[in-house]
Amino acid sequence: MIMPNENIKKKLKNVNQFKIDENDDIVDLIQSLKDTGFNAKRLALACEIYKEMIEDKKCIKFFGLAGALVPAGMQRVIHDFVEEGFIDILVTTGASLTHDIAETLGYHHLQGEVKIDDYELHKQDLNRIYDVYLPNKVYEGIEDYVSNLDIPDENMPVSSFLKLLGDQLPDNENSILKICAKKNVPIFCPAFTDSGLALQLGFHHQNLNLNHFKDMLKMVDLAWDAKQAGVCIIGGGVPKNFILQSLQFCPNSAKYAIQITMDRPEQGGLSGATFQEAISWGKVSQEAKFSTVISDATIALPLILWFLKKSKKNS
Amino acid sequence: MIMPNENIKKKLKNVNQFKIDENDDIVDLIQSLKDTGFNAKRLALACEIYKEMIEDKKCIKFFGLAGALVPAGMQRVIHDFVEEGFIDILVTTGASLTHDIAETLGYHHLQGEVKIDDYELHKQDLNRIYDVYLPNKVYEGIEDYVSNLDIPDENMPVSSFLKLLGDQLPDNENSILKICAKKNVPIFCPAFTDSGLALQLGFHHQNLNLNHFKDMLKMVDLAWDAKQAGVCIIGGGVPKNFILQSLQFCPNSAKYAIQITMDRPEQGGLSGATFQEAISWGKVSQEAKFSTVISDATIALPLILWFLKKSKKNS
Amino acid sequence: MIMPNENIKKKLKNVNQFKIDENDDIVDLIQSLKDTGFNAKRLALACEIYKEMIEDKKCIKFFGLAGALVPAGMQRVIHDFVEEGFIDILVTTGASLTHDIAETLGYHHLQGEVKIDDYELHKQDLNRIYDVYLPNKVYEGIEDYVSNLDIPDENMPVSSFLKLLGDQLPDNENSILKICAKKNVPIFCPAFTDSGLALQLGFHHQNLNLNHFKDMLKMVDLAWDAKQAGVCIIGGGVPKNFILQSLQFCPNSAKYAIQITMDRPEQGGLSGATFQEAISWGKVSQEAKFSTVISDATIALPLILWFLKKSKKNS
Amino acid sequence: MIMPNENIKKKLKNVNQFKIDENDDIVDLIQSLKDTGFNAKRLALACEIYKEMIEDKKCIKFFGLAGALVPAGMQRVIHDFVEEGFIDILVTTGASLTHDIAETLGYHHLQGEVKIDDYELHKQDLNRIYDVYLPNKVYEGIEDYVSNLDIPDENMPVSSFLKLLGDQLPDNENSILKICAKKNVPIFCPAFTDSGLALQLGFHHQNLNLNHFKDMLKMVDLAWDAKQAGVCIIGGGVPKNFILQSLQFCPNSAKYAIQITMDRPEQGGLSGATFQEAISWGKVSQEAKFSTVISDATIALPLILWFLKKSKKNS
Repeated sequence: MIMPNENIKKKLKNVNQFKIDENDDIVDLIQSLKDTGFNAKRLALACEIYKEMIEDKKCIKFFGLAGALVPAGMQRVIHDFVEEGFIDILVTTGASLTHDIAETLGYHHLQGEVKIDDYELHKQDLNRIYDVYLPNKVYEGIEDYVSNLDIPDENMPVSSFLKLLGDQLPDNENSILKICAKKNVPIFCPAFTDSGLALQLGFHHQNLNLNHFKDMLKMVDLAWDAKQAGVCIIGGGVPKNFILQSLQFCPNSAKYAIQITMDRPEQGGLSGATFQEAISWGKVSQEAKFSTVISDATIALPLILWFLKKSKKNS
Repeated sequence: MIMPNENIKKKLKNVNQFKIDENDDIVDLIQSLKDTGFNAKRLALACEIYKEMIEDKKCIKFFGLAGALVPAGMQRVIHDFVEEGFIDILVTTGASLTHDIAETLGYHHLQGEVKIDDYELHKQDLNRIYDVYLPNKVYEGIEDYVSNLDIPDENMPVSSFLKLLGDQLPDNENSILKICAKKNVPIFCPAFTDSGLALQLGFHHQNLNLNHFKDMLKMVDLAWDAKQAGVCIIGGGVPKNFILQSLQFCPNSAKYAIQITMDRPEQGGLSGATFQEAISWGKVSQEAKFSTVISDATIALPLILWFLKKSKKNS
Repeated sequence: MIMPNENIKKKLKNVNQFKIDENDDIVDLIQSLKDTGFNAKRLALACEIYKEMIEDKKCIKFFGLAGALVPAGMQRVIHDFVEEGFIDILVTTGASLTHDIAETLGYHHLQGEVKIDDYELHKQDLNRIYDVYLPNKVYEGIEDYVSNLDIPDENMPVSSFLKLLGDQLPDNENSILKICAKKNVPIFCPAFTDSGLALQLGFHHQNLNLNHFKDMLKMVDLAWDAKQAGVCIIGGGVPKNFILQSLQFCPNSAKYAIQITMDRPEQGGLSGATFQEAISWGKVSQEAKFSTVISDATIALPLILWFLKKSKKNS
Repeated sequence: MIMPNENIKKKLKNVNQFKIDENDDIVDLIQSLKDTGFNAKRLALACEIYKEMIEDKKCIKFFGLAGALVPAGMQRVIHDFVEEGFIDILVTTGASLTHDIAETLGYHHLQGEVKIDDYELHKQDLNRIYDVYLPNKVYEGIEDYVSNLDIPDENMPVSSFLKLLGDQLPDNENSILKICAKKNVPIFCPAFTDSGLALQLGFHHQNLNLNHFKDMLKMVDLAWDAKQAGVCIIGGGVPKNFILQSLQFCPNSAKYAIQITMDRPEQGGLSGATFQEAISWGKVSQEAKFSTVISDATIALPLILWFLKKSKKNS
């Protein structure tokens, strides 16, 4: 907000009328969008903030992933974020892990027209995720794999189990679980039992009691120890809340914050809450740089990755 | 969809030009909205389907609750759904339980203008949930209560712990935990550790390892045993997915399904997914009656409760 | 915003845990929602502001109507707003007028399942408006009516033509055009030629050149002369912008402002713009009472009408 | 929809796990997104359909532009669409024309933080369009220009007036009015009097009665004569409806259709209506290729332009 008697106009600058040439690259695009308005500007700011977050060597980068991004063909995008060192701690949903393990085991999500009759799909053992389809036999494949898993400690934290899983899975150039295991990026999944993967685990390992509380406390420790913290939130949900509740314990709160979501603040859910609001909670610093992009992540996230890769190469 | 050569017009009927008289009651309102269009019609259908679900004595009613409804003044609404027997199984978020315990212990969420500076809020120990504010001292009160809890079994399922909590909490006419305990309505919370309540528990009960897998399997059993199943989903999130993944094991799938959400299907997240889509998964029966109301739950849910209460009295 | 050193908590009050009894009436409902949060509170505020706007005898009430409310069964709702004296000036779309004239001539919009094949509809001469259907023959009926119209002045303003139309149409208990003509409520339609009604007029009255500029200037005069002004916006679009651009010329700007919309501010379109933003333009007074309800109008508008009717009777 | 007994799986293909290399170009990006899901896939399809529409030499390309794209820095984007020959007929809002004339006369929209106090803005003669600001003096500049205009025929169609305006305006590399005049691309503006530009015209040219009906009929003629038709809709509103109502008279209806919007179909407004629905009206052919991208146009439109420019150069 602006205090009375200040000259606001001095704080404003001309809108840039965006121009693109066929030979421009993604860095040119983002650079030109930076001085526009609305979500184009927010996307450009998100790119810049992420870049700065990477260049800040002290910064621990928390990444919250909700939504069916793997079925939508964004598995490799997340994989590359991890491989490139753009993610230090991943928090995600059980569904994302289930989708990831399916692709890692060599199964595929299928694409097609939206307007297929759902009861026909059901009769043909195909499950719909909007315009993506998953055959039931994929779950059977996961079940086979999971039933044969040797789990050395039935009370280990979920994050330890996911590391174990990543280590054991076959090599795969797109696998999120695999690359996180390789790069020692911990994966947290607070709602793990809300997933097909956990159901199969529960059916075949009856005494399993993965320790969710140890994960929660470990996450708090990670935030507590972070000299600088940054967050990138895809789609809200439990991953967003879990990261932000932990960042309350980060001495300096988050200094960088990016969010890509279609949710809005007015109905009060955390998924659509602004980073402004997170300042009141001490989750995000009042001096933080932040940007929320109102966009389907399948559009914005590939652009951000492309920008970060190109910027990294240029530097 | 309609097959070729059928006469569509025979399947259509006139739109009712909605009329309201000052002395009409909520049943009249819903009755008149039923033959309109868009979300008004969907709301009227949702009311009717819920009523039918209640009258179907064999039907097990699953209720998924996400979003900050307690801070928004909807605690008593949920309480009344339970007290009136409109909910058999509640699945919710850790945040809702934290908000409920706060109010049950005698603290209050506060309301005020949206446009308060968030850093000022932070300095004055006030946390924002859109236009609702929660003082930090409420968390201290929860901490006091939680630190003194006697937890007989550190490996009990979350649902058992929540029953214990409901039994021990002081009497309160609005409390969701309390009324669920009284009425033996189980509460499931798959992402329990994603909450302020769990953080306090974890800090003060270091060996706690509530068994999330037992909850998951119990929920599957409940679905498996249900002769008829109905669902009401408020806002999507983990509660929606957890109910629907369990209903895959219900022999007849859900026969009734209601959803109140602001989320949409096009970006592929489960929160916005249609019930049509759930048919492909076998979560909802192809013969089910269902209605999704695109609305802030704070508007639609009080109307549904009012309608159900009035209808119950009339019958 | 709050200035430093102020005690924010003193400005806040407890959230009311909403309670409804089966015998409560709509005034009780709104009263109880008033001290909650999110859109429930906004709806209650909208009701109160509208009531106050009616009681303020000097206030000219501008009403902007966009969206297919007549097909959705809300024709009588608008009719009653006019009949009860809740609207002084109506600004709407050509589509709404086309839908209104169709119903006024005795035709009906039809309702049915959403999932009917659109090409089948086309082959059977049925046009879809989401889950409402309009047979082509309705347009033929409008054409008959329009082709026989005697238009005394081909250069009259659109608003004068609509008054003429309202006077000539057969009596009908739901007709918006009819009740506006009877009550001398002017109807403005800046995008009149963007409608089926105008197409038929243009085809059959080749020299017609209704004067849109006179409407624009008349609207500015009405705003200029208003001692107090209030606005109710349904759904944004041209009606919203046309009212607000005129209110820049109202000496005191709008003192009351209500909006029911599903649009949001972040992508910069006027439909989703906040009333806060309108203060910068001098369209809405900085002292105005205003409330934007994020809701499908088919849900919120009947409730507001019901509340206003009941309040009027109670007073 | 799929008929019973068909093997759906045969119609599906694997989702492509999107991969981007730092040296990829925009054509690679779109190519890789094409076989993903959700809005990423829709965006890729929109790019391909637009490309095909351009390559189809018989196709008349209708472009509907709503929303404050010029203030958001997208003036040059629209300019380039026209200059490159990607638009044959432009339908837009009075606001867009007002914004365009402001920039063409050498004024600038300003950018800055969202959270500036709106009453302070008002006192400092700055008007807000979300995060873009327009000084009052820009309107004075437009007034000066407009008051001195020589308008040879007070009853000319709006489109003829806009051609005249484009011819008379000073040269400017970004101007939409200018490039449309140069390239003889007609501009239609059905709600012209709903704009600051029209207000100034009306104040200074009291007898002006631009003929909106002639525009409407001319537009129908253009559609009637189109051997093939394609549409690109940005943001809905009157431009969308005006194009689609005209396309009902196109012998083959639209064969290509693209839409970029944040609006959704469920509340029944035309802005969010699907192209599927337009098939029932005969506005879009049942054999059309179409894609709706749920996105802020400021993100999607620059990408589409970039893709089309690069593809054009490659070909």
